[in-house]
Amino acid sequence: MFELRQKSGKARRGILKTAHGEIQTPFFMTIATAGAVKGLLPEEVKNLGGQILLSNTYHLHLRPGEEVVEKAGGLHKFMNWDGPILTDSGGYQVFSLAKIRKLKADGVEFQSHLDGSRIFLTPEKAIEIQQKLGADIIMCLDECPGAHEERAYVKKSLELTTRWAKRCKDYHEIHKDKSMLFGIVQGGMHSDLRKESAKQLTEIGFDGYAIGGLSVGEPNEVMYKMLDETLPELPEDKPRYLMGVGTPEDILEAVERGIDMFDCALPTRNARHGYLFTSKGVVRIRNEAHKEDFATLDPDCGCYTCKNYTRAYLRHLFISAEPLSLRLNTLHNVAFYLNLMKKIREAIGKDRFGDFKKAFLATAKSS
Amino acid sequence: MFELRQKSGKARRGILKTAHGEIQTPFFMTIATAGAVKGLLPEEVKNLGGQILLSNTYHLHLRPGEEVVEKAGGLHKFMNWDGPILTDSGGYQVFSLAKIRKLKADGVEFQSHLDGSRIFLTPEKAIEIQQKLGADIIMCLDECPGAHEERAYVKKSLELTTRWAKRCKDYHEIHKDKSMLFGIVQGGMHSDLRKESAKQLTEIGFDGYAIGGLSVGEPNEVMYKMLDETLPELPEDKPRYLMGVGTPEDILEAVERGIDMFDCALPTRNARHGYLFTSKGVVRIRNEAHKEDFATLDPDCGCYTCKNYTRAYLRHLFISAEPLSLRLNTLHNVAFYLNLMKKIREAIGKDRFGDFKKAFLATAKSS
Repeated sequence: MFELRQKSGKARRGILKTAHGEIQTPFFMTIATAGAVKGLLPEEVKNLGGQILLSNTYHLHLRPGEEVVEKAGGLHKFMNWDGPILTDSGGYQVFSLAKIRKLKADGVEFQSHLDGSRIFLTPEKAIEIQQKLGADIIMCLDECPGAHEERAYVKKSLELTTRWAKRCKDYHEIHKDKSMLFGIVQGGMHSDLRKESAKQLTEIGFDGYAIGGLSVGEPNEVMYKMLDETLPELPEDKPRYLMGVGTPEDILEAVERGIDMFDCALPTRNARHGYLFTSKGVVRIRNEAHKEDFATLDPDCGCYTCKNYTRAYLRHLFISAEPLSLRLNTLHNVAFYLNLMKKIREAIGKDRFGDFKKAFLATAKSS
Repeated sequence: MFELRQKSGKARRGILKTAHGEIQTPFFMTIATAGAVKGLLPEEVKNLGGQILLSNTYHLHLRPGEEVVEKAGGLHKFMNWDGPILTDSGGYQVFSLAKIRKLKADGVEFQSHLDGSRIFLTPEKAIEIQQKLGADIIMCLDECPGAHEERAYVKKSLELTTRWAKRCKDYHEIHKDKSMLFGIVQGGMHSDLRKESAKQLTEIGFDGYAIGGLSVGEPNEVMYKMLDETLPELPEDKPRYLMGVGTPEDILEAVERGIDMFDCALPTRNARHGYLFTSKGVVRIRNEAHKEDFATLDPDCGCYTCKNYTRAYLRHLFISAEPLSLRLNTLHNVAFYLNLMKKIREAIGKDRFGDFKKAFLATAKSS
């Protein structure tokens, strides 16, 4: 259940109620691909203000398998996280990770990137797996066309996505549990196809609507335009989720247009590669300049890393490939993203989102 | 300053006073090679009962360099640990890690295993580096012969170690700080040479005595024999440190003979490789048998890993090469070692060390 509480321009603030608790929107979902955030404990994410984790159906289906997770008492218990969990349908990973994929009317056949085994994923199967995992928010199986596919292909693809969405909804109606089911808008970089997809999904009716197939290589401006065109077609009283996006700037642009939910590997993946988000822009911690830099990483950040360590120490850990490097970097980047979302919610609450966005971007570019 | 408080047979319980606080003996030092425990925060080690960390002079000299650490305010501040730190002299790493080494009367020349640069380490330089790092307990530079060196070589080597120890002591006397300086007994697997080394070092006089050059490939019984022969030659009122040892069984055998201090990479390194210490013996977590094993890793352990996760989840993390695997495994293995030391101290306190040792070994071998 979604309650829209407040607006600042088109930016929205609300509450999303799940079987594992309420979430303040807009929010960012920290990635726990295979049932674990890379290097952090679930309770650390919670202490940083994390409200929900995202796990990947594709990964968990391949390893350890949803049967094992179900026997363990579900994903929450398995990974020791009692807050909400969203799982994706696996569609995007089949598209981006699997070695061979063969699209059929009934579903998609693909080869595991781990052991080459052949797997057939149908809309019904995607829901069944997610229900066995026990997620609070589950996603319809979709087909995600690349950024440069021809219009004719994209049109056919979105129609397939709609038919699959209907089958997911039907299966979910019959096998009712506490999960909320979201549809995924596709349509590539074509405004009319995006609108068509949004309308078709709204007719079927979902607990929330995701925008998929963006941030796949197109210019930012194209992505923003797609949001501008698509969002008015979606019902105001349902949450909107922009999948796999993005940089702090992208998030601000999307919130401004009315997006409520985000996920992205950027904070965790960049942490592993030593790219650290700060209020003054990105710090590349391996740089020689930090060798004797005994300053705090980000004086505007109150996270454990910033409170206890210097840039010189973080550089030393990174250069030395110490496991603590990944951990302290990830802690900071996740803190940065979750703090950003908190500030966004506060700004919307004060109906000053536009000012906040402008100030944030000005500071981030100042260094 | 060392206070011997109690004995149970030859096993000793006491207090070692350092510039950064008192340590209950016997104790185990968790390895923080390059100024970081692999995957754990210093405060986590403290919360598990860790009293002291050990860092490696060789590694810190090469990277980031003792000058950087000194400018950072010393190793304690650099790594955010306010308890005692012991640094080794670098001698053992020159022996085991460096590509080329050339022993000279004055010191040892070696090539960095990182970048091939040529470094000349003298006894004086080894002390100077450790003092710049700011360690509480520092070690003399020694030469560590292999387990199969000929007697003549070992004899010459121990005499070199003694001469270097004298030079370390002299340098330390002149450049006095709050650090305690330990000598290192060598002598290979030859009882008479071990005794000679112990006597020579005792004559020079140190704050504590380490036994080096054991656990380098010899059978356990030979190591125990060397301890039996050497320890009576060392002063009762100084702490004795068995370097780089070892398994829980080795530790029990050595405590029984009167050793007060240990360090070993085993708990942290084995954690990374998925070998987990439990009260019923070692668990190889990757084993297929744990795939649906929803039991606690070690029901006798109260660590975070054992309280919150199943063997099935730990196996999943290990198989998936998740960074959280290293972290949860390390946390547990370090907890196991530190708990073992706590139980050892309690058993000595009750003058029941022999019974404790017997019971521990019987249970560990029961699975």
